[in-house]
Amino acid sequence: MQHDTFLAGRTRNMGSSAIREILKLAARPDIISLGGGMPSPDAFPTEFIDELYRRAMDHYGTEALQYTRTEGFPALRKALVDHLAGQNIEVGADEVFVTTGSQSVLDAMGKILVSPGDHIAVEAPTYLGALQAFNPYEPSYVQIDTDEYGLIPESLERVIAEHNPKFAYLSPTFQNPTGRTLSLDRRKQVAEIIRRSDTLVIEDDPYGALRYRGEWAPPIQTFAPEQVVYTGSFSKVFAPGLRVGYYVAPERVRQWLVIAKQGVDLNTSSLTQALCTEFIAGGYHDRHLPKIIEIYRPKQEVMLEEMKRHFPDSFTWTQPDGGMFIWAEGPAEADMEKIYEEGIRNKVAFVPGKFFYSDPESGRATMRLNFTVNSEENIRTAIERLGASIRNVLSG
Amino acid sequence: MQHDTFLAGRTRNMGSSAIREILKLAARPDIISLGGGMPSPDAFPTEFIDELYRRAMDHYGTEALQYTRTEGFPALRKALVDHLAGQNIEVGADEVFVTTGSQSVLDAMGKILVSPGDHIAVEAPTYLGALQAFNPYEPSYVQIDTDEYGLIPESLERVIAEHNPKFAYLSPTFQNPTGRTLSLDRRKQVAEIIRRSDTLVIEDDPYGALRYRGEWAPPIQTFAPEQVVYTGSFSKVFAPGLRVGYYVAPERVRQWLVIAKQGVDLNTSSLTQALCTEFIAGGYHDRHLPKIIEIYRPKQEVMLEEMKRHFPDSFTWTQPDGGMFIWAEGPAEADMEKIYEEGIRNKVAFVPGKFFYSDPESGRATMRLNFTVNSEENIRTAIERLGASIRNVLSG
Repeated sequence: MQHDTFLAGRTRNMGSSAIREILKLAARPDIISLGGGMPSPDAFPTEFIDELYRRAMDHYGTEALQYTRTEGFPALRKALVDHLAGQNIEVGADEVFVTTGSQSVLDAMGKILVSPGDHIAVEAPTYLGALQAFNPYEPSYVQIDTDEYGLIPESLERVIAEHNPKFAYLSPTFQNPTGRTLSLDRRKQVAEIIRRSDTLVIEDDPYGALRYRGEWAPPIQTFAPEQVVYTGSFSKVFAPGLRVGYYVAPERVRQWLVIAKQGVDLNTSSLTQALCTEFIAGGYHDRHLPKIIEIYRPKQEVMLEEMKRHFPDSFTWTQPDGGMFIWAEGPAEADMEKIYEEGIRNKVAFVPGKFFYSDPESGRATMRLNFTVNSEENIRTAIERLGASIRNVLSG
Repeated sequence: MQHDTFLAGRTRNMGSSAIREILKLAARPDIISLGGGMPSPDAFPTEFIDELYRRAMDHYGTEALQYTRTEGFPALRKALVDHLAGQNIEVGADEVFVTTGSQSVLDAMGKILVSPGDHIAVEAPTYLGALQAFNPYEPSYVQIDTDEYGLIPESLERVIAEHNPKFAYLSPTFQNPTGRTLSLDRRKQVAEIIRRSDTLVIEDDPYGALRYRGEWAPPIQTFAPEQVVYTGSFSKVFAPGLRVGYYVAPERVRQWLVIAKQGVDLNTSSLTQALCTEFIAGGYHDRHLPKIIEIYRPKQEVMLEEMKRHFPDSFTWTQPDGGMFIWAEGPAEADMEKIYEEGIRNKVAFVPGKFFYSDPESGRATMRLNFTVNSEENIRTAIERLGASIRNVLSG
């Protein structure tokens, strides 16, 4: 039976196996991979996970094992009200919705909003998983220019005027892949632009809590609540294996998102939602977050130091105040696919940056480096190997 | 901001708020609802859930908290091999894939296979949640006729010849909503038809283990593995709050399903998958299942008895060998929406059967009754009230 002949038209948009092949190589046990995007297992709250489980079962009993509301586990939605107030986001429990990882609300946004050919505006570069979520709905992407301070508001304004996108997908805080954070001024400018043009925005914020230095700025959502779907996640501050995220959205948008979610998974796991409830309502989040930061900050500092030592002067890279990634750019002749191959020979891996652009011609001389998974020692070794690999290719 | 003006074309297909409104009424605390589709909390394995949690953390540690493979938690896929062999389904661990409840593979099948206007063949009646999963992909449904023994193979054959559907969605064992089970002979006939016509089938089997009497028959998948996507679930034998299902599918189909799933939720919760692993690999499933059956069988018997006592002679209903539902049909003049309203006045609720048909004109005199959630005493009271409500409307 020729199963491929049955595929829907949209499915040809979902291929993109190149990065899969690349990451398979990086999984070889002799290779130090800076290619991943996972938290360190050391940052998981193993010392009190049993206590959270006990509290969840004591408080919720069989409710934590039963189907729950598509909108979310009631106790978690209540607990998220205070949690979000800490981000200046003022909502009631009825206005916070839970998703299966923040990934699943990206899929739902594509589903309810995007007809084939509709435009989605994305930062250049942007989160690869967002493109994978939107692709099945056959959008046309338009790129928003960025500089070292994140997206350039004037470029967003131009993109809106020229392409009238269904929405713009933005990740303004410690963005994956660049680590960049949008300044308060630019946030206000973005809010002003989207309010004036009535443009919907997804503000994806999975990394915001991982701040190692610098000053906090409120989400764009707080300046334009009618235009912004703000998404947060427990994956980076608790554990990604729980698959719990949440979002705040304008009323009509969240009503459609719930209908979409009901068709996809009925509801997010009640048990993992009950654990997240206890994690924030029991004060564990506030106690645990500083420990995560104490694990990641030194790793990032080591990586930045070693890059200064081993990368050629022709390279530049970001100096993020938080998050999980550093983004480096070489001179135009730095072909990252060649550097990747040379890296594999030298037992180090990363993700070539071009995968993070909706335009396949962009970002050929860029790379994303993760610093959360490896030990400081492995980071030193990896960056040394990577520096050598770059020099080998550039001088070759 | 007028958010509805942003909606995609497909979203108008996702409305169907009538049943939502109806079930809201049924949630009133003074009403006994036979409208739900949930397992009884009494059937949850509360006496050993702590032990399962302990085993999962001891065996898998931080692996149960980390991202895992989109295909599924490796230990669960291994454990499912033996579990599926008990259903005559012979596959390796690489061929079993995990989903976020079996609901999410229904969405993924729609996504990878259905272009707008493509046909999907469904039983009349069929599972409402399947329609909700497929609707966003804008299919044209064609109904397969059923009789008291489930779908009629000749009707399936005619539907395939006339409409060439992308796939047929079937639930051959203790179907939701009717409770009907397809005989071994008909299973073989269906397999023969889909093999001959190269038609893809989803064989949805969440209830198969809940057998109270009668003889087991192997899944259609075992007779046509190249044509069938077989889906199972932990929701009815363990707990729906875990959101873990699984499926077996032809190689090319499962490759596309994984790409679709990656965009939607990256992976199903590692923690709840680890619990399911211990549930089956530790022998808990085999010990626990008889207890569930001992809870549900008497409830079903009580409901059937009381229906005989209180329903008018003009009604007929199914006598399922298992599952969670009984399906009743009245004479043509039995308008179930009126009976529903009268039922609410008498403090009893059910789901009018018309919601389970893709054709809105079908099933106006039918109803679905759930027997798993309520106590035997409440079932007696509910059926008495329902019988009175029916008589009131029919004589009115």
